[in-house]
Amino acid sequence: MRRHKRKEELLHSQVEHMRSSVEAAVDCSERLAHSTLAERADWLRAVAEALDAADAELVPLADEETGLGEARLRGELLRTTDQLRFFADVVTEGSYLEVVIDNANPHLVPPTPDLRRYLRAIGPVAVYAASNFPFAFSVLGGDTASAIAAGCPVVVKAHPGHPRLSRRTYELARDALESAGAPPATLGLVEGFEAGVGLVQASGINAAAFTGSLAGGRALHDLAVARPAPIPFYGELGSLNPVVVTAAADQERGEALAQGLAQSFQLGHGQFCTKPGLVFVPTGSQLEKAINGFVSGDEGRLLTASITHQFRNGISALKAQAGIEVVAGGTDDSSAPTVLAIDIHDAINHPELLRTEVFGPVTLLVRYGSDDDLAAALDAVGGSLTATLHCTEDERLTGLVARLEKIAGRVLFAGWPTGVAVTWAQHHGGPWPATTSPFTSVGATSIRRFLRPVVYQDAPQTYLPAALLDANPLGIWRRVNGVWSAPDGRSGRE
Amino acid sequence: MRRHKRKEELLHSQVEHMRSSVEAAVDCSERLAHSTLAERADWLRAVAEALDAADAELVPLADEETGLGEARLRGELLRTTDQLRFFADVVTEGSYLEVVIDNANPHLVPPTPDLRRYLRAIGPVAVYAASNFPFAFSVLGGDTASAIAAGCPVVVKAHPGHPRLSRRTYELARDALESAGAPPATLGLVEGFEAGVGLVQASGINAAAFTGSLAGGRALHDLAVARPAPIPFYGELGSLNPVVVTAAADQERGEALAQGLAQSFQLGHGQFCTKPGLVFVPTGSQLEKAINGFVSGDEGRLLTASITHQFRNGISALKAQAGIEVVAGGTDDSSAPTVLAIDIHDAINHPELLRTEVFGPVTLLVRYGSDDDLAAALDAVGGSLTATLHCTEDERLTGLVARLEKIAGRVLFAGWPTGVAVTWAQHHGGPWPATTSPFTSVGATSIRRFLRPVVYQDAPQTYLPAALLDANPLGIWRRVNGVWSAPDGRSGRE
Repeated sequence: MRRHKRKEELLHSQVEHMRSSVEAAVDCSERLAHSTLAERADWLRAVAEALDAADAELVPLADEETGLGEARLRGELLRTTDQLRFFADVVTEGSYLEVVIDNANPHLVPPTPDLRRYLRAIGPVAVYAASNFPFAFSVLGGDTASAIAAGCPVVVKAHPGHPRLSRRTYELARDALESAGAPPATLGLVEGFEAGVGLVQASGINAAAFTGSLAGGRALHDLAVARPAPIPFYGELGSLNPVVVTAAADQERGEALAQGLAQSFQLGHGQFCTKPGLVFVPTGSQLEKAINGFVSGDEGRLLTASITHQFRNGISALKAQAGIEVVAGGTDDSSAPTVLAIDIHDAINHPELLRTEVFGPVTLLVRYGSDDDLAAALDAVGGSLTATLHCTEDERLTGLVARLEKIAGRVLFAGWPTGVAVTWAQHHGGPWPATTSPFTSVGATSIRRFLRPVVYQDAPQTYLPAALLDANPLGIWRRVNGVWSAPDGRSGRE
Repeated sequence: MRRHKRKEELLHSQVEHMRSSVEAAVDCSERLAHSTLAERADWLRAVAEALDAADAELVPLADEETGLGEARLRGELLRTTDQLRFFADVVTEGSYLEVVIDNANPHLVPPTPDLRRYLRAIGPVAVYAASNFPFAFSVLGGDTASAIAAGCPVVVKAHPGHPRLSRRTYELARDALESAGAPPATLGLVEGFEAGVGLVQASGINAAAFTGSLAGGRALHDLAVARPAPIPFYGELGSLNPVVVTAAADQERGEALAQGLAQSFQLGHGQFCTKPGLVFVPTGSQLEKAINGFVSGDEGRLLTASITHQFRNGISALKAQAGIEVVAGGTDDSSAPTVLAIDIHDAINHPELLRTEVFGPVTLLVRYGSDDDLAAALDAVGGSLTATLHCTEDERLTGLVARLEKIAGRVLFAGWPTGVAVTWAQHHGGPWPATTSPFTSVGATSIRRFLRPVVYQDAPQTYLPAALLDANPLGIWRRVNGVWSAPDGRSGRE
């Protein structure tokens, strides 16, 4: 009884804390929306510096809670602070504002007014942290970095898989933000399932970003769009990341491909949203023959008890399917890496197999004989974050590449999908169920999720945001009267 | 009994026709996605030419069905064909592809791959036509033009307010598309309520665009997001379009403002989504005293029986509210233009008044005394397509303008919101309930709604889309290694 009461009190205080965090975010949201590019760049760099300085504390803490290993976690922390600095650059460069200026044209019928468009902050954002990247997709991950870069206060829902790391990261970031002059409510942290469910429904929240399971993401998505005022929900959910190996590629370098695949699907114990989970190989492939030699027999440690449970159940369910063979691993009640295989006709007859993601170190080889079978199976896969082709230089597979582009957000050649570089061009998204929106959650353009356009019509210079002034004091690229115009005012048509 | 059966048969055939239209759209969608920019520009221009050539037939037909008058409809048809040609220009210019290229950097830790991002067509799009713009927001309106420009086949749900015009416009466009070499299923037309409800749920449809009532839009939105695979729903729904007149502006030009407001709210019999429906005026304003002289006593004709019914009910409901006074019109059971007024404290005490849109020729003056009252009332208005300020040159109202930007997608100075120019910079959207997404439904950037990013990683030139080739054969602006690069390859840093 007492325990029950304590639990209720905790839950109540978590929900209360969520409410006050959202309120504080709302209160500072206009201050953030109208902060300067230089201010926000400073804030992001200050946070990066604070996290880097605390690596000796943060990395062991992360390892304790996740078991992902110090080397991987050290790299991930660097990636995270690089990402914060990258968004400082993106903000300063200013193209993300998408400024378009059309001067008035009194000679048209009807005459057109002076119109000046830019993107402004959407307002308070909810970010749901993921378990599998305790730095890069958690409290100070890409969603938070891009939202603050956009000028939005962020309320993060911590992942229960690494609560102490989440709190410590948050404290460091909050102090760094405050020292750098940001409003204290620029970043908030909430914990607990109920607080998370309430967060996406809180009327002060204007957008939500989520990285995690299809089931969890769908549930939050449904709450976000059912609100009296629906909000954009940016979910990065499930992905099979199909890989196609041509017969010629298998013949040329089947063993090397087996090694590459094995490394990729076992990376981080297979707990990457970009893990290659479905690999189309020619029947009788060298790859299949060689892969067992590259698969670790170690049970390893999965991130949470729930992931362990779901992984083991997932493997059992797959093994029970007609036509599935175990190529490597696959021991009952084990979390060891596993390779399964199936003939493509059995897969086409049970297309749900081509859409079943098991999170963790497992991949399914699909043995194909004809290009028609391969095409039919790819059409059944549905949306994915990535699609990969391994072929030889002299092959001309334009139709196949078009098919991969149709189902994926990133099309890779001769590589493996598990690395996601944070750059200007990166796109990390794809047709449902990979993501719930035509946006990316990694790279420069992920900032667009937290912005909305506003156009000023016939505004005196006095009232224009800096980005839209004739003098271009921010020194940014703008489209003026349909033509790209350099920061120094040179027209692109010169 | 026979009539009931005939109705059922009609309904069945309408739904069947919808299904086959979607199927045909799916079948040609990859052909469209991979069509060239020049092809699609030709298609759009061919449709524009066909509609212009048929103006003597289309304009009287539109007037018969809508009563909007030949002059207005002739202008609207020109606007519509100009819009088709504008999107041909947008496509040809190619910046809409948002190309970003990052060359591989082997010196980074970890090294980054070659990444090339562009936007590709999202696939078949459903467009729901509006009643109030039988050309510009109907079968060949902005949604259809921007979707075809993006490379998406379109299935239009015709508005029942102008069925014959819809069919004729469709026939002309279809023939023009076919003659210009477009796949026949580039454009489809469906009719009937059930077909419309089924269309947004059809698995082949990848996005939907809608212009119309909040209730209708919300219902379709809810279906779109509840699908097994949710799709983006771009709804342009409701808007009050608040206008603020300062005491100084009223004193300087109150009568001219009354005339401008009267023209704007009566334009097209008040049936514009940008109609100024809520006008904050100083207590005892010249504007209020003068406006009666500019309001027509004509009943006019509203677009449909349902709009007439809702308008009359809406006026009655407003008149029944405590504190509301009739300034002009307001006769029971009439569709004549009406001006109502209320003191701001009565409005703040009944904030639902500040969020009630009555579609048709009515506007509500809200008399304010203090800036604090004005600010509180504006905060209660919620999202709108536009917000307008009428002030004098020497006023400095930065805080007020920030407040208007917070609630609207377009902020106007010294103008009226009822004209929406189709240009590069235009933005026609705003926070809920103005729109359901952070996108525009008018102007060049509306094309972004029907595109999704794809990034190619380490792709040989052979497999790259033309937009991403080193040689830049499309001659478009691209961001290369973080720097804007002109079509001739000049870097923006030179």
